[in-house]
Amino acid sequence: MPSTSAAPRRITALAGGIGGARFVRGLIAAAPGAEVTVIGNTGDDIWIHGLRVCPDLDTVMYTLGGGISEERGWGREDETFTVKDELAAYGVEPAWFGLGDRDIGTHLVRTQMLNAGYPLSAVTQALCARWQPGVRLLPMTDERAETHVVVNVRDGDGRRAIHFQEWWVRYQARLEAHAIVLVGADDAKPGPGVVEAIEGADVVVLPPSNPVVSIGTILQVPGIRESLLRTPAPVVGVSPIVGGRPVRGMADACLTAIGVQTTAAAVAAHYGSRSSGSGILDGWLVDTSDRDAVAAVEALGIACESRPLLMSDLLSTTAMATAALALAEHNAVP
Amino acid sequence: MPSTSAAPRRITALAGGIGGARFVRGLIAAAPGAEVTVIGNTGDDIWIHGLRVCPDLDTVMYTLGGGISEERGWGREDETFTVKDELAAYGVEPAWFGLGDRDIGTHLVRTQMLNAGYPLSAVTQALCARWQPGVRLLPMTDERAETHVVVNVRDGDGRRAIHFQEWWVRYQARLEAHAIVLVGADDAKPGPGVVEAIEGADVVVLPPSNPVVSIGTILQVPGIRESLLRTPAPVVGVSPIVGGRPVRGMADACLTAIGVQTTAAAVAAHYGSRSSGSGILDGWLVDTSDRDAVAAVEALGIACESRPLLMSDLLSTTAMATAALALAEHNAVP
Repeated sequence: MPSTSAAPRRITALAGGIGGARFVRGLIAAAPGAEVTVIGNTGDDIWIHGLRVCPDLDTVMYTLGGGISEERGWGREDETFTVKDELAAYGVEPAWFGLGDRDIGTHLVRTQMLNAGYPLSAVTQALCARWQPGVRLLPMTDERAETHVVVNVRDGDGRRAIHFQEWWVRYQARLEAHAIVLVGADDAKPGPGVVEAIEGADVVVLPPSNPVVSIGTILQVPGIRESLLRTPAPVVGVSPIVGGRPVRGMADACLTAIGVQTTAAAVAAHYGSRSSGSGILDGWLVDTSDRDAVAAVEALGIACESRPLLMSDLLSTTAMATAALALAEHNAVP
Repeated sequence: MPSTSAAPRRITALAGGIGGARFVRGLIAAAPGAEVTVIGNTGDDIWIHGLRVCPDLDTVMYTLGGGISEERGWGREDETFTVKDELAAYGVEPAWFGLGDRDIGTHLVRTQMLNAGYPLSAVTQALCARWQPGVRLLPMTDERAETHVVVNVRDGDGRRAIHFQEWWVRYQARLEAHAIVLVGADDAKPGPGVVEAIEGADVVVLPPSNPVVSIGTILQVPGIRESLLRTPAPVVGVSPIVGGRPVRGMADACLTAIGVQTTAAAVAAHYGSRSSGSGILDGWLVDTSDRDAVAAVEALGIACESRPLLMSDLLSTTAMATAALALAEHNAVP
């Protein structure tokens, strides 16, 4: 019997790493049969020991394809680090990046395809042929655009920009960040299918990914923000901040760097309201512990509801996704 | 008390993989305190999954540096093949090459240095800084010159050239070889220090390496054969053929491909005699089981003796090296 509900057929999500990937699991469960497209952040991408590593794309691919280490939230399950130990024995830098042996298989295939001239989007599609993540995974751009963080020079007065991964992994985001910059953004364009996926969707969702270095990075690719303003689909987001703290990761350090408070309402205000012309959101989900923020968010012109936002298992994650889709449906342009 | 013997101070050996490497162990033991230079074959080198692999250089480096798998005779001890399995899971070719995880550490360092513009000789020196092989290891050339084998097209009339590694590893040298060609030889020149190591040596030794695709390949680099003809040092070789069979590997298939019989005497004749102007040898060691060949080799103008030529342990290998050095000393130009 065909469904008579208005269940969305085409859902597009912008995603960073583990938070975005887990939320998309819930989306798939909440909307069975829907075509889900994930636009992945590539600002974290980095050349390590001559290998092209795409942490967020791989996290989405492994998480949805059943290969992720659930415990770590990045990289492969049953991972070993033999190659990393060998590189350390040779004394080559950097030694701080967690390059697993299984993971290196992925990086070798990617690097060789890139060096042969394939764009990252084609490479990602080829890798997904193995993992079958159940979504269409599109890099935000095929161009090289990498997030760098401006920090103080150690024992000096000046400042220098280091790669986001060095700041995040090596320094655990503990170095004060004066600015976060997407190097190469000016020359980047949305990857193949990205604009079409946003403008052709029934719903666009912003999962609880990092609003600065995941979603924020995707929005910096010229054309993507414009496409979110233009799409007829409702755009709804899920707060990554619960009770004034990031649920996972160090988003607070990133928000501080761009002068945004670490609260659910401040992040909504940072994204801005489509109806008022200040930004990209039609709807925003906050955690039940942040229900006091609902009125403030609605005052911005963004529909807002509070729900439990902890992705502790697939059931709770599916409930979150269902709530996000319902919020979108209620706020769709008729 | 300083030695009063005429022990050579500077020994230069041309070497392929495991046979050459093990013989050099014996040389080091036979001539303590000597400066040993090994000129390594790079005709086997290959790009695999975007990694530059130098099987013979690595075998020498690992064997003399204590990292070799003694059992396999190539690659690292305690090796795992996780990355190889992952590449196979992606379905990328070639799947027949034994790419170990520990080994990949070496290949990543090498590939990144080569891509950064360092010549192979500098890369090899950098890798040896870790392994401390106790010899100076020089690639025969810094240029890319790779051995290819001409075989029949399967199910067809034509012929095609495949990389030596494919013939050797994938097909176990079982495809009939119509020719063995060093592609790129015309543009290759001896690597830094190679000619000086040959012309400045007290003794030049050809270990029992493959006379076609190891020693023969080195001799094809323009300038190296000329340097062996010119050096004031005696040049002595050790037969890799014992009792009409290669001691190790499939040298018979290679000899057949170039029209040379698989006998100790035929290999000596193939190398030729310096004194008669037909080649590069002053002396040649054959196995005791080939003592009947001694007269035939001497008739070519090459000093010849028979000794046990099985490198079953360091003691027997050292005895072989001692015999080779003694043969050289007796045949040195006064």
